[in-house]
Amino acid sequence: MILIDGKETAAEIKLEIAAEVRKIIDGGGKKPHLAAVLVGTDGASESYVNYKVKDCEQVGFGSSLIRLPEETPEQELLDTVAELNKDPEIDGFIVQLPLPEHIAELKVIESIDPSKDVDGFHPVNVGRLLIGMPCFQSATPAGIVELIARYNIETSGKHCVIIGRSNIVGKPIAALLAQKRSPGNCTVTVCHSRTPNIKDLTLQADIIIAAMGYPGFLTEDMVPDGAVVIDVGTTRVKSDQTKSGFKLKGDVDFEGVAPKCSYITPVPGGIGPMTRVSLLLNTLKAAKKEVYG
Amino acid sequence: MILIDGKETAAEIKLEIAAEVRKIIDGGGKKPHLAAVLVGTDGASESYVNYKVKDCEQVGFGSSLIRLPEETPEQELLDTVAELNKDPEIDGFIVQLPLPEHIAELKVIESIDPSKDVDGFHPVNVGRLLIGMPCFQSATPAGIVELIARYNIETSGKHCVIIGRSNIVGKPIAALLAQKRSPGNCTVTVCHSRTPNIKDLTLQADIIIAAMGYPGFLTEDMVPDGAVVIDVGTTRVKSDQTKSGFKLKGDVDFEGVAPKCSYITPVPGGIGPMTRVSLLLNTLKAAKKEVYG
Repeated sequence: MILIDGKETAAEIKLEIAAEVRKIIDGGGKKPHLAAVLVGTDGASESYVNYKVKDCEQVGFGSSLIRLPEETPEQELLDTVAELNKDPEIDGFIVQLPLPEHIAELKVIESIDPSKDVDGFHPVNVGRLLIGMPCFQSATPAGIVELIARYNIETSGKHCVIIGRSNIVGKPIAALLAQKRSPGNCTVTVCHSRTPNIKDLTLQADIIIAAMGYPGFLTEDMVPDGAVVIDVGTTRVKSDQTKSGFKLKGDVDFEGVAPKCSYITPVPGGIGPMTRVSLLLNTLKAAKKEVYG
Repeated sequence: MILIDGKETAAEIKLEIAAEVRKIIDGGGKKPHLAAVLVGTDGASESYVNYKVKDCEQVGFGSSLIRLPEETPEQELLDTVAELNKDPEIDGFIVQLPLPEHIAELKVIESIDPSKDVDGFHPVNVGRLLIGMPCFQSATPAGIVELIARYNIETSGKHCVIIGRSNIVGKPIAALLAQKRSPGNCTVTVCHSRTPNIKDLTLQADIIIAAMGYPGFLTEDMVPDGAVVIDVGTTRVKSDQTKSGFKLKGDVDFEGVAPKCSYITPVPGGIGPMTRVSLLLNTLKAAKKEVYG
């Protein structure tokens, strides 16, 4: 069994990005700049955004954090987005989700210039992802594909069973792994809450991606010998073993499942760090105008 | 075994559309108008476009056919699209594909206003389809879903195995049938040329959608008793039994497979007519501003 070390891989990628940033600056270029817009004071959103700013510092990107109060009218947020779209200093930006209920999320996302949409949530980027064209891929599926590539895990002709059909994980990773390319060329099965026989399906899988947010869902009896298991779950559960009083738990019962796997990602330290680094990779691509020219 | 009659269903839908058009006009509204742009003189494209114009006449839509020579520069086509985008008389339009090789297809498609993109090929519509938001769905998958709905075929919790991963059929129908809605809520498996064990998968299916363009591929031994079989294949094969010297052949070996099915679509007369009528439904939606308001 090989433990896929997302933390280490993400650290390596950060070093690669930092080296490229230095090269850009040495060549007289401008340092890549990521902006984040945070509306309100949701605790989880605060900490995600802070991580993103810190990641930027680590690799030498510039970053801006734009804070707007919870009661910001939708139009004011749209105006902020319009300014960021125009600002030549900003290569890419994100609007941290979820937004307060009085703001229409899709409307805001569609107002972002697709060429600066480094979260990859704009329908233009989602659509390009599905049809296999250049795009900003959303962070978690991009991170999964990057890990698979860096560990040289064969995907062509393999059966990948994905549990979960969310817009930010299940659907895009299904689309990416079915594409005619490498990594890709998987037979892909998407199952979800309405699937009556998930175990029958996972038992036929070469690769299992668990992404439904149900801690410990995937148990030993559901996994065939030699499977690759990717755990996208990150549910906070109470714990008396940590200072914070909680710990992250994945969708996979790691202790039972790991001994049967050829490869497995842990939680924490698997897909989480890769998700964070994907945003940096997208920002670098945006700065280099690799997707939209 | 119930034969799904796409021809009859399409005819019924045309009558419904025609009735709605009369209501719009009686209410003082403008008749829906579809425009088609045809570049060059490809025989198949000519006949598709002619069918589309004829379909418009049948339901009382206005229609325009814009012919451009094979050697039209890309910019001139983009200018034509820009005019159609602005023209308030045109509710929806299509640029018939394929385009000549000197024209970048994606560039042209992305220049179409998504609110007039009744082919549903603009990445904004594809992306909205994947994330389950209002959109123009491309014609073939929309036609399949409409047939399933009108025949009251249960999809929730069923396993749908799709053979083929094209951008216009396999990928979007997979996305539509996995959505959390009705029809939808399927467990979806996408297989394709790299899938080593297609038969193992189809034998587990409740619903099989054959969409790879390989005449007679799906044979009796690959289909479980009671399956719903949807045949999207329409390959022209030579025939001495028809005046034209050819006939359409589906991806399903109909004679062998049909007796095992609960429902099956024939070729011709199954998905083909539903694909054509889907374009009319999209044009009506565009005229009523149902998708983009």
